[in-house]
Amino acid sequence: MSIHAVSADDPVPPENHRLLRALLRQPVDMTPVWAMRQAGRYLPEYRKVREQAGSFMQLCTTPELACEVTLQPLRRFKLDAAILFSDILTIPDAMGLGLRMSDRDGPQFEHPLRTAADVSRLGVPDPEDRLRYVLDAVRLIRRELAGSTPLIGFAGSPWTLATYMVEGGSSKEYARVKGMMFQDPVTMHRLLDINAHAVTIYLNAQIDAGAQAVMVFDTWGGVLTPRDYREFSLRYMRQVVAGLKRESDGQRIPVILFTKAGGLWLEDLAASGCEAVGVDWTVDMSEARQRVGGRVALQGNMDPSVLYASPDRICQEVQAILDSYGPGPGHVFNLGHGVHQQTDPDRLAVMVDAVHALSAKFHSPASAATSQAG
Amino acid sequence: MSIHAVSADDPVPPENHRLLRALLRQPVDMTPVWAMRQAGRYLPEYRKVREQAGSFMQLCTTPELACEVTLQPLRRFKLDAAILFSDILTIPDAMGLGLRMSDRDGPQFEHPLRTAADVSRLGVPDPEDRLRYVLDAVRLIRRELAGSTPLIGFAGSPWTLATYMVEGGSSKEYARVKGMMFQDPVTMHRLLDINAHAVTIYLNAQIDAGAQAVMVFDTWGGVLTPRDYREFSLRYMRQVVAGLKRESDGQRIPVILFTKAGGLWLEDLAASGCEAVGVDWTVDMSEARQRVGGRVALQGNMDPSVLYASPDRICQEVQAILDSYGPGPGHVFNLGHGVHQQTDPDRLAVMVDAVHALSAKFHSPASAATSQAG
Repeated sequence: MSIHAVSADDPVPPENHRLLRALLRQPVDMTPVWAMRQAGRYLPEYRKVREQAGSFMQLCTTPELACEVTLQPLRRFKLDAAILFSDILTIPDAMGLGLRMSDRDGPQFEHPLRTAADVSRLGVPDPEDRLRYVLDAVRLIRRELAGSTPLIGFAGSPWTLATYMVEGGSSKEYARVKGMMFQDPVTMHRLLDINAHAVTIYLNAQIDAGAQAVMVFDTWGGVLTPRDYREFSLRYMRQVVAGLKRESDGQRIPVILFTKAGGLWLEDLAASGCEAVGVDWTVDMSEARQRVGGRVALQGNMDPSVLYASPDRICQEVQAILDSYGPGPGHVFNLGHGVHQQTDPDRLAVMVDAVHALSAKFHSPASAATSQAG
Repeated sequence: MSIHAVSADDPVPPENHRLLRALLRQPVDMTPVWAMRQAGRYLPEYRKVREQAGSFMQLCTTPELACEVTLQPLRRFKLDAAILFSDILTIPDAMGLGLRMSDRDGPQFEHPLRTAADVSRLGVPDPEDRLRYVLDAVRLIRRELAGSTPLIGFAGSPWTLATYMVEGGSSKEYARVKGMMFQDPVTMHRLLDINAHAVTIYLNAQIDAGAQAVMVFDTWGGVLTPRDYREFSLRYMRQVVAGLKRESDGQRIPVILFTKAGGLWLEDLAASGCEAVGVDWTVDMSEARQRVGGRVALQGNMDPSVLYASPDRICQEVQAILDSYGPGPGHVFNLGHGVHQQTDPDRLAVMVDAVHALSAKFHSPASAATSQAG
């Protein structure tokens, strides 16, 4: 596999500003579209690189390989965004918890946090030191993209990182992390504060390296009660948002917050200071839009399982979601969760093309010029 | 282990009508309380019987053993309800799918449904034939309870049963069942219709055998979009509710519907014809009560993980939930999901006692007589 280097002879591709404009609720010509986990195991070309790398972590920590798999879906699909190929658990790994990815059991930490003493030993890693491989990947991807498509950086939410750090891996009932939360809230708050600092400087380093928008994945905020969500998850995402650089090279850097299964708390998310809120498929876009009341853009919300359906059925679902959001800017089309591993890549192409073809009528023709040429 | 038989010499214990009255939104002296999976592996006396039985299915299918484990938590805790010890997958097992319970992987079907032909071969089992063991358990439990505590019967929702029947067991992404739903909705509707018929006659048979309230567990309705939830889950629960006997021995039989992660759809559930809606912990009771607008009672909603906390913290959470629901009838206190296996039984006792002690002030003293003596 070779990476195509940009040379002075290459024509500069036209810039695609749809994503960044939509996140800032500015007019666009078509609804922008990308897919969570658009780089991944459902792509045969990804599986080839993953095999060459030997392990998932080797793939993540080798900037050339991370760059290559980031760009793969953009060669297949007319996506309006690239998203850095990495993992939300790079931060706890850099803190010394020892991340290992098992095909059967998912992520596993060699040194999970079980006591207040474990948490007290934890430090905030310097991204330019122990996470340099991520920043090198961001720099390389930006160079390769050469302005053709914007690049999204990301991190896990402080609470979501804490669930893995305390449980030691994936969990069904969150007994350990909730046990710590209820039995020793002081330690839990200390851990979340450390995570919030680590996420903030990590995302700022990604922005400095070239990320043009950043997304915080709160995969497990939805397992909390509303009170606990506000106290243990949302509060620390607000802390992250407040600490982020919001401009780089004269461009505004939009922030997307996504709490999976957080459909009941959209109003709280919309008031957090972010530019956009991700929504899974359990809430209709019309209801979500009405509830956030024009304060933020919305990103979502097709059930990834729809990609098992026929092309006609996929187009029908795309239409239903576009209809539900309705006319005007502020919608970034996406899946409500990552692309499933068993997905046929051609079905994702159907979705991407359908979003563009079916959404133009929701946008005024006058916005075409600005979206295409910036 | 021996089962205490009721004899003519036994004093008749006072009847406890709190649960049934609260489900019908009638005045009570205290908020009634029970816990989903209150009979189960967290109790050492359960583990002893489970071991004697040899297998989970042996325990389920032996009425004397199912009766014994149903009664165990009532000997420890001042619970206001007994719930039949059984499993939601008894129906597909009776349909011939071959249920096997694995300690590591949970429920597994030997013959999952993968094609339209598989579904076309499916019949509705006669409960008095292939599910007689459940009805015998209901009859035995009622005799043992001798009116002291009401007995709740239950079944899985048509959609939830379908997820296990098509996936062949538990699932993370529901790729197979959603695949069938999107690719072949006609077959999926046929399956759901069969399940709805089977659930209806099964619950009616439980009512005939003595169940005084019935609950439908829609454990996996929450993995659907709002449109798909209405079409593939709620619709068939409504069909079940419409077909249930609502009176037995001159007593009204309340129906409780519980869609886990269904907090966004409480209005739809409240309009389904049921008497009560179960809520997990992701929605505040005050908001839930306001949204269902007095049409139904509410059951819930403590996070089972709170039982890992100190007794003081448990009481604080009970208080918060009672405060959130506020004064007046129509609340059945419960966990938002089953008791976790690692729970210390003494902590559940703290919760049960706290509900009674802290809730009296939310009810008028005049209701004491009716709740205690019926």
